Amino acid sequence: MKTAGDLLQPLLQGDKRALARAISLVENDDPEGWALVREVYPKTGRAQVVGFTGPPGVGKSTLIGALVKNARAADRDVAVLSIDPSSPFTHGALLGDRIRLTEHFLDPGVFIRSMASRGSLGGLSEATLQAALLMDASGKDDVFLETVGVGQAEVDIIDHADTVVLVLMPGSGDSIQALKAGVMEIPDIIVVNKADHPLTDTMVREIRGVLSLGPKTDWRVPIVQTEAARGDGVAEVAEKIAEHREHIKAEGTLDERRRRNLMNEVLALAAGRLRRRLEESVREDASVQELLDEVVSRKLDPASAAAKLLEREL
Amino acid sequence: MKTAGDLLQPLLQGDKRALARAISLVENDDPEGWALVREVYPKTGRAQVVGFTGPPGVGKSTLIGALVKNARAADRDVAVLSIDPSSPFTHGALLGDRIRLTEHFLDPGVFIRSMASRGSLGGLSEATLQAALLMDASGKDDVFLETVGVGQAEVDIIDHADTVVLVLMPGSGDSIQALKAGVMEIPDIIVVNKADHPLTDTMVREIRGVLSLGPKTDWRVPIVQTEAARGDGVAEVAEKIAEHREHIKAEGTLDERRRRNLMNEVLALAAGRLRRRLEESVREDASVQELLDEVVSRKLDPASAAAKLLEREL
Repeated sequence: MKTAGDLLQPLLQGDKRALARAISLVENDDPEGWALVREVYPKTGRAQVVGFTGPPGVGKSTLIGALVKNARAADRDVAVLSIDPSSPFTHGALLGDRIRLTEHFLDPGVFIRSMASRGSLGGLSEATLQAALLMDASGKDDVFLETVGVGQAEVDIIDHADTVVLVLMPGSGDSIQALKAGVMEIPDIIVVNKADHPLTDTMVREIRGVLSLGPKTDWRVPIVQTEAARGDGVAEVAEKIAEHREHIKAEGTLDERRRRNLMNEVLALAAGRLRRRLEESVREDASVQELLDEVVSRKLDPASAAAKLLEREL
Repeated sequence: MKTAGDLLQPLLQGDKRALARAISLVENDDPEGWALVREVYPKTGRAQVVGFTGPPGVGKSTLIGALVKNARAADRDVAVLSIDPSSPFTHGALLGDRIRLTEHFLDPGVFIRSMASRGSLGGLSEATLQAALLMDASGKDDVFLETVGVGQAEVDIIDHADTVVLVLMPGSGDSIQALKAGVMEIPDIIVVNKADHPLTDTMVREIRGVLSLGPKTDWRVPIVQTEAARGDGVAEVAEKIAEHREHIKAEGTLDERRRRNLMNEVLALAAGRLRRRLEESVREDASVQELLDEVVSRKLDPASAAAKLLEREL
């Protein structure tokens, strides 16, 4: 088996197997994985990182597949990282969707990977950034991050992206309400997929209504209608992504965004490690279990128990 | 101004102003608030805590208002805690909804409070539990927690509840997809509100389909159709909530749930405090800013920066 050191050169040269192996190391929280990210970090920051979010079933994977084709036609190397929600309920329900990306599996210029949420979203967000950095270092021009979900948590995961694309379809009433109520942040680009649906125009009008309520910014959030399965509108999505990137570059907000994202990331990484340490101590330590027993029997309140934990552990 | 010590007796006697003041202390992270929760904690655990979640606009507040009326008719004291999402986008968009609860404002047996998310969801979840404990200690028979949202994060917030009710309406396609894909956990009770809509039957069938895919448990998740604005179906929701509570009590899972929730809570409180300490150190400390500058200029990778932070701070 190759060590992390052996992976460094092939990874930087864009070798797919080295990249896959490196991501596994990071995903398994292997110290060699972290060492590798440390090594390649100075070579990162060149890829265009785009995040896609939206409810399940709207056709995100199909859209991403079409965008990959588009990027390949322009001779750009692409990596796709799909972040699976963890659920004890219906494992693999979303994987059918991902199969649509298989036509690219044999193309050496395309790297596709999915990563499963394991427990806390913080941990996943952490692994997502590390994997995206490895993809960036391996010379990809485009890194596409995909999350499945309809809440703020999902938007947070893809906050590592330079550009955030929200994908909806006619019938995505809950998501529009969430935008309207301010429960979900306004993305940079909105795509209405499956736009052959008769309710598309109503939907687009509703979205425009929501956007008109928002703060006026220099970037006007475009609403692009697509039928990704047929390729319709996909070139326009690619254009808008490029335009948004040019916009934030020209405005200077790309650096600002990255600075803010990196700062949040450092804090999240540090906090995540602390939490993991705590959780390990809880699992292994009988006296911590006693502390919890006191909480359950209403002798000790949760905040005091937390304070006691912190005193002991740190 | 009253001190926390002065609040203790009136709070335990159910005084509304004392309860309001106590929650403010907790919300402002005032040590006196924590001290108060510590004092009253042994008196908690008696209230029936019910969490309501679902997309904005489905009529959660109307349903809760109707349930409050129902509880009052049965001479039960009720507290409602609405958790507002924080958004720089449309402040107050959801407050209109809340006005429907005003008819109960003058009733001494009803306490209504809304709490705004401030930054991290962890922090809000923490404050939610503390406020719920104070409501419980003040002698409320029912504590209703309400979150607005369509993601797992919102479900996590109301995980302090003994029973979780998901409220949908015809057109809640995204939420059903999220349930189907396992992005959102299956709640204990599902309410389809605005059930006069022609698509209600289709919707109920879809939900049944999703539930049939799930694991078989002893509790069959009921789907209740309501028109909360007219009071239709509200008594049935109240019955199902009571049945669910009886069920988990009989099964012994109420204690199990509470133990798990309390354990998660202690960990979240501890981790949240650690994170806050870190954030404070970042704000105040010039050398931490230098560390971040190194990350932004790609000299130091985020994980190493996090490790350095942890070494220094703890």
